[in-house]
Amino acid sequence: MSAPESGNPIPETGLEYFQDRVNRAQALIADAGYDWLLIGPSADLIYLADYDAHVSERLNLLMIPAEGSPSLVVPTLESPLVGKAGELAAIQTWNDGENPIDLVASVIGDATGKRIAVGNHLWSAFLMRMQAALPGGSWEEAVPILREMRMSKDEIEYAKLLEVSRRTDLAWEEFLVSGPISGLTETEAMNRLKEITNAKGIACYGGICASGPNSASPHHHTGDRVIQPGDAVIFDWGGTLEHYHSDVTRTTFIGEPTEEFVRVYNIVREANQATLDAVKPGISLQELDRAARKVITDAGYGPAFLHRVGHGLGMEVHEEPYLVEGNELPLQVGMVFSDEPGIYLEGKFGVRIEDSVICLADGGKRLNEATRDLVPMS
Amino acid sequence: MSAPESGNPIPETGLEYFQDRVNRAQALIADAGYDWLLIGPSADLIYLADYDAHVSERLNLLMIPAEGSPSLVVPTLESPLVGKAGELAAIQTWNDGENPIDLVASVIGDATGKRIAVGNHLWSAFLMRMQAALPGGSWEEAVPILREMRMSKDEIEYAKLLEVSRRTDLAWEEFLVSGPISGLTETEAMNRLKEITNAKGIACYGGICASGPNSASPHHHTGDRVIQPGDAVIFDWGGTLEHYHSDVTRTTFIGEPTEEFVRVYNIVREANQATLDAVKPGISLQELDRAARKVITDAGYGPAFLHRVGHGLGMEVHEEPYLVEGNELPLQVGMVFSDEPGIYLEGKFGVRIEDSVICLADGGKRLNEATRDLVPMS
Repeated sequence: MSAPESGNPIPETGLEYFQDRVNRAQALIADAGYDWLLIGPSADLIYLADYDAHVSERLNLLMIPAEGSPSLVVPTLESPLVGKAGELAAIQTWNDGENPIDLVASVIGDATGKRIAVGNHLWSAFLMRMQAALPGGSWEEAVPILREMRMSKDEIEYAKLLEVSRRTDLAWEEFLVSGPISGLTETEAMNRLKEITNAKGIACYGGICASGPNSASPHHHTGDRVIQPGDAVIFDWGGTLEHYHSDVTRTTFIGEPTEEFVRVYNIVREANQATLDAVKPGISLQELDRAARKVITDAGYGPAFLHRVGHGLGMEVHEEPYLVEGNELPLQVGMVFSDEPGIYLEGKFGVRIEDSVICLADGGKRLNEATRDLVPMS
Repeated sequence: MSAPESGNPIPETGLEYFQDRVNRAQALIADAGYDWLLIGPSADLIYLADYDAHVSERLNLLMIPAEGSPSLVVPTLESPLVGKAGELAAIQTWNDGENPIDLVASVIGDATGKRIAVGNHLWSAFLMRMQAALPGGSWEEAVPILREMRMSKDEIEYAKLLEVSRRTDLAWEEFLVSGPISGLTETEAMNRLKEITNAKGIACYGGICASGPNSASPHHHTGDRVIQPGDAVIFDWGGTLEHYHSDVTRTTFIGEPTEEFVRVYNIVREANQATLDAVKPGISLQELDRAARKVITDAGYGPAFLHRVGHGLGMEVHEEPYLVEGNELPLQVGMVFSDEPGIYLEGKFGVRIEDSVICLADGGKRLNEATRDLVPMS
């Protein structure tokens, strides 16, 4: 797998591209001894059938049997939206006032002894209705099948991820010189970064701006706190390009950084580098978490690194594989994931530095190159 | 229930407001013979515990037993976000690398013979993991319990819904005189309406702009089609204020409307009025669908009215109750729902007119008063 040239047009993906995925899913289901794979509105559905269905109380469901033709259950009023999926599966529409579960049950027939794999994001209400309507079936997570398919990216996916990451980097570089953020609320600062990101032709899906003591809360809800001199400020944001996500975190400081902040910043930066340096096909994913954690623990901040070092990235901003203690899955060429160590000092400040990384045959390569230097803002 | 004065400050909701809801939920669970109510990140969770949890692969779960104290399972790194929920439930944190399902199982203990109600939006993956870890339990939809609580709005909810609707109306009136939309793409036109809506101090969550033949697809994905003279253009959008949604649809025409368009427009407007006129506590919800459908069917367009006439509206843009054939639930004072008949002529155009309506003791009252007159744009 070679790095795509930045700026080159990304190839179009036609019906065949998705037909191949449906075929592979079918082969994986059969191999694993499942009878059915059921996928609701989700990245899985876009991945398999190029269908970006509404997530709502109206059921959309792609049904792939181990043998035979797939079906797609669709609300009649959404049937104009199915696109290619209409050629990949037999469309089964249902009208408001009808029960789509009846349609699902009639497609599956007698479920006794059948093993049915269900996509992880399908609402529980739909699963429970199917379980009631199809007694005797065994219901299992489809995660292992979809993970197998989606974890390692192909060259087209790689090109999209690289491009969306590159544009996010450009947004950060521009944001750094966009003027003072001291005096703005977190929401106002985040909105500025969001606008700059959107202007790069990607859709910024939002993000976290966490300032001062709020930066010590990894998943802080961006709010009304006014940014002020002496604050550490974390920005964790990204955008999407043709359904593929970027996910970047940078930490800045308002004014002259304190000695403690600089020390912590450099430890986090070293941990971020340590993850990257550890990337090698075949090692277990938990080794990456350990590599970053060792740096932070050795520096005396172990308990302040409150989360795993990273997560898979692709059509979802968090997806398999997870870089976490206990995950013994081996790293594979084509896996893309975040590398985001952090140190969070309650009541004081936090630092997180996050890049996206791809595993190549000869090691890790960053998709992000926005500066990791500590650049104070005013 | 009386109409709140527009412009009056909306009362704050303190701990007691949510404690009362948790208590009511507990009473409803006990009455219905459930042992547990399990609620993941969702409007239900915000409604019950004022906790707007991240929807992600990291489990957050509010666990309310029929008797005794509730628990809240939370990822450690999100525990700073729980707010009031930390006073309503015992917080049980779990770290990355630990399995939160173990925590859930230890709180429930032996599940044999227990009836466990699960919130409808919880991801299936979590449900299946709980089903595997807690054999012998019976898993059921929590919809009847949450519906009972959330369908009829209290005065504070009513005030929020009225205010967010009023601001959305103002946005429409301003949009109508904001200049030509002919020559813009659907996305550009939608963005203009979105910006105007956001400027009213509510968060526009997006919307549909469907132009020309696209307007005949009720759930059209707003896209790159350029709006042109002779187009019908449907805008279906809304915003949120303190978690409460508006949801409005207006249809305009670019230039001089055709005779057919005017005829169809007037039928849809009449159907919209017929729904409102039929609102009365005690009649079944399907009667509202029938009222609008009768107008459209009598005019000869029955098959072109592709969907139910409406859905509940509150903390979700689609929620219980649904105004659909087959729904025999009785209308109750305080129910808020959309009234949105439409006629869709494939290959030609569509018309939809949507307001939000509340059921009061003496009948229906619209929350939206943006003009329903046919106002052409250029």
